[in-house]
Amino acid sequence: MNTLAQRYKTSLSLLTDLYQLTMAYGYWRTGRHNEEAVFHWFYRRNPFKGKWGIVCGLQDVIEYLENFRFTPDDVHYLGSLKGADGQHLFDEGFLNYLQRMEFSCDIDAVPEGTVVFPHEPLIRVKGPLIQAQLIETALLNIMNFQTLIASKASRITRAAGKDIVLEFGLRRAQGIDGGLSASRAAYIGGCHATSNVLAGRLYGIPVKGTHAHSWVMGFDQEKEAFEAYAKAMPNNCIFLVDTYDTIEGVKNAIEVGRELRKQGQRLLGIRLDSGDLAELSKQARQLLDDAGFEQTQIVASDSLDEYKIAQLKAKGAKITVWGVGTRLVTANEQPALGGVYKLAAIRKPNEDWAYKVKLSENPIKVSNPGVLQVRRYYMSNNLPFGDMIWNEAAGKPSGEIKSFDGREVVASGRSYQELLKPIFRAGKSVYKSPHIRDIRAKTLEQVRLFSQVNFEYYPIGLEKGLHHAKKELINKIRQS
Amino acid sequence: MNTLAQRYKTSLSLLTDLYQLTMAYGYWRTGRHNEEAVFHWFYRRNPFKGKWGIVCGLQDVIEYLENFRFTPDDVHYLGSLKGADGQHLFDEGFLNYLQRMEFSCDIDAVPEGTVVFPHEPLIRVKGPLIQAQLIETALLNIMNFQTLIASKASRITRAAGKDIVLEFGLRRAQGIDGGLSASRAAYIGGCHATSNVLAGRLYGIPVKGTHAHSWVMGFDQEKEAFEAYAKAMPNNCIFLVDTYDTIEGVKNAIEVGRELRKQGQRLLGIRLDSGDLAELSKQARQLLDDAGFEQTQIVASDSLDEYKIAQLKAKGAKITVWGVGTRLVTANEQPALGGVYKLAAIRKPNEDWAYKVKLSENPIKVSNPGVLQVRRYYMSNNLPFGDMIWNEAAGKPSGEIKSFDGREVVASGRSYQELLKPIFRAGKSVYKSPHIRDIRAKTLEQVRLFSQVNFEYYPIGLEKGLHHAKKELINKIRQS
Repeated sequence: MNTLAQRYKTSLSLLTDLYQLTMAYGYWRTGRHNEEAVFHWFYRRNPFKGKWGIVCGLQDVIEYLENFRFTPDDVHYLGSLKGADGQHLFDEGFLNYLQRMEFSCDIDAVPEGTVVFPHEPLIRVKGPLIQAQLIETALLNIMNFQTLIASKASRITRAAGKDIVLEFGLRRAQGIDGGLSASRAAYIGGCHATSNVLAGRLYGIPVKGTHAHSWVMGFDQEKEAFEAYAKAMPNNCIFLVDTYDTIEGVKNAIEVGRELRKQGQRLLGIRLDSGDLAELSKQARQLLDDAGFEQTQIVASDSLDEYKIAQLKAKGAKITVWGVGTRLVTANEQPALGGVYKLAAIRKPNEDWAYKVKLSENPIKVSNPGVLQVRRYYMSNNLPFGDMIWNEAAGKPSGEIKSFDGREVVASGRSYQELLKPIFRAGKSVYKSPHIRDIRAKTLEQVRLFSQVNFEYYPIGLEKGLHHAKKELINKIRQS
Repeated sequence: MNTLAQRYKTSLSLLTDLYQLTMAYGYWRTGRHNEEAVFHWFYRRNPFKGKWGIVCGLQDVIEYLENFRFTPDDVHYLGSLKGADGQHLFDEGFLNYLQRMEFSCDIDAVPEGTVVFPHEPLIRVKGPLIQAQLIETALLNIMNFQTLIASKASRITRAAGKDIVLEFGLRRAQGIDGGLSASRAAYIGGCHATSNVLAGRLYGIPVKGTHAHSWVMGFDQEKEAFEAYAKAMPNNCIFLVDTYDTIEGVKNAIEVGRELRKQGQRLLGIRLDSGDLAELSKQARQLLDDAGFEQTQIVASDSLDEYKIAQLKAKGAKITVWGVGTRLVTANEQPALGGVYKLAAIRKPNEDWAYKVKLSENPIKVSNPGVLQVRRYYMSNNLPFGDMIWNEAAGKPSGEIKSFDGREVVASGRSYQELLKPIFRAGKSVYKSPHIRDIRAKTLEQVRLFSQVNFEYYPIGLEKGLHHAKKELINKIRQS
């Protein structure tokens, strides 16, 4: 589908923090640029204080990497940048090197739509230090946001249960692509459709929408507005009833619904966009049912999120379609996922891996060393049993999990799968992204599985040997 | 510069909610599409509970509108959409109409970088109902976000006073364009530079950056890492000192700084990224000063925003450069501006304007009718005196302001300017966006002016005649 390339005309190789380029220059000048490095992208806390996250964004990362090369324009711009002494930041040799550089990393990643947990490496980049460094910012930008929104959408659709959730957020999204990629991630997280037509075209997501207050205001009477709409689009009638008075609006919708019925069409729904949604939906349901419109849906919108949906359901609201906008596409309560990308190992030619950790007084911020993989174990009933992060470069793992909550759990002998899958080998893509419908289906299946897990007993942690190796490494650094 | 077109390859005409297209179809089917309509974009509450907002985003809106046409691909996609009965949503005649449609609206807007207030029309669209409707979503998307971020950046740079503020947010921004347009708006709001290299290239914003923790971790010793960096880029040395132990890091930086000095280069700065920034900055300042590095800057980053900066300053932190990321580019505390786009007047051929208001039980949500303009009055010392929203279609305004807080203030006789400037006439751009540096300078000057205003006495409201006309209109609707 190549949607990133469809969207962006410009080379995205400069979509990075300047310090990636100054570090790249430093590596090149010191002759270290081709040392082999391993970086992992992971997050440290589940978004929204939830039990898990839904990983999302890989398809855009793949397209970004497939097109990762510095164009003459890119290099020309970099050549114009100057340092504190007025001299150029980068020399000609480096700029030439950049322009000739060909992406050659190995990338492994957890497929989109998978349930994941803090500290698990979700993308692993292995390759020349300079390249692994240069792709950091774009990878973080894409993955952090889409994972955030897919996770939010999953929470919202779970709160909605069997109801339909429509994503309506484009007008309040953070920029054009903030809207486009939010629509994609929201669908993957479980939303049923979007109002965003360009996202529909680019990603193949179902699109929905009927009319706004302005349609009603453009006529002298509300009923006249509904009639005109029904005449124009008899097969898409969901009337927004709260422009002037909600209950009067419902009555007008019912009258026009009767006309539609005569023509063999249906009053698909009414939409409430303000006021006491629980109370109004009950009154509207009653009026609709009394008039024989039992099949007519009640759509609601108005700053909705998983908390408001749960509250409204608790109050017995008769809403079956939820239009969710701002609070979904901006992830209102936590608008950024603090995902990070950390160096975990490096080796010079013909040497062994030197493992790396980033220390911090805050234990949650200490990174994990190694060439990491995540093994997910299953019980005999196919429910997940636990997750073990292990170092592929340290030989066969023990199957003993030193869980982050301090327990030791033996998982060996159980069936398992490795979560990180090969995505690039030597700079070439070896992975075909599933259709977005299948990614969404995967999310729903994963959520169904993990909803049955008792997290009091679910171990997530380091393989025992890795746990010890990390401790030793930390002691060594602290003593030096 | 045409940066939007530089960024986006795809036509953005489908960057809209589906309901804009279904309403457009409705207008077309009912023969109303060419009625002349007036819509206003405005917001109802200042972002971040501030005293004002900084309007931003117009340049992207202009570029979007200059390219507003439905391509054969766009129309082909629309032709594939289906309604509840399995029939196509849109008929051939309409699709042909869309493809031939040429943008012909008049647009007036408040220039970017202007201080603005709730309910003031910031963009006015006047033209065929169908076109004014179709551009709503993209206009809201672009303006809501950039205005939000420019306003946030203005607050942060004011908190920083005379210090430098660098925008570092790309990795946590909401998508690629969430990062690009945030960098643009942050600069316009007053930031001095960005880490985002592509934003630097596209918009001509200064770019800054040195190195990350990974650079330090790539070496066996921290000092070795600083030395290698200094060797590679002696003219860009700001060392990140907290990878292992901050104070040891400062000492290592000083040692390398001495070497730099011998080569005629400078230790530009050190960067703190964790821990007690107030305390650490004081200790670092002392160590630097004692070693004769009085000119070396102390840069700080770590989830900063205007509140944290003010707190750190109150604690006597010795920080003079602030790196601000996530909380700026996502506007963490309020990640969306609730800006709206409301129909305010409509007229059929050879008829008078029919004025429109959107009612609501919440008075703040009642919109203002008319073909609106904002007149800003000044005192004899050139400080702003008050803002009056008036209806250009109702003749010469009285100069009496019925302020939203209930007061009546006479402004007639004072000097004034109209805030809305002509941007498009009959679909053609008649406005040249200033250079981004000049937009930023305007923001700073506006903030300087309005910082001297006592808002207890600053009237913002409707022109008296408009106030009465609105009241009458509301009564008429409520009685009907």
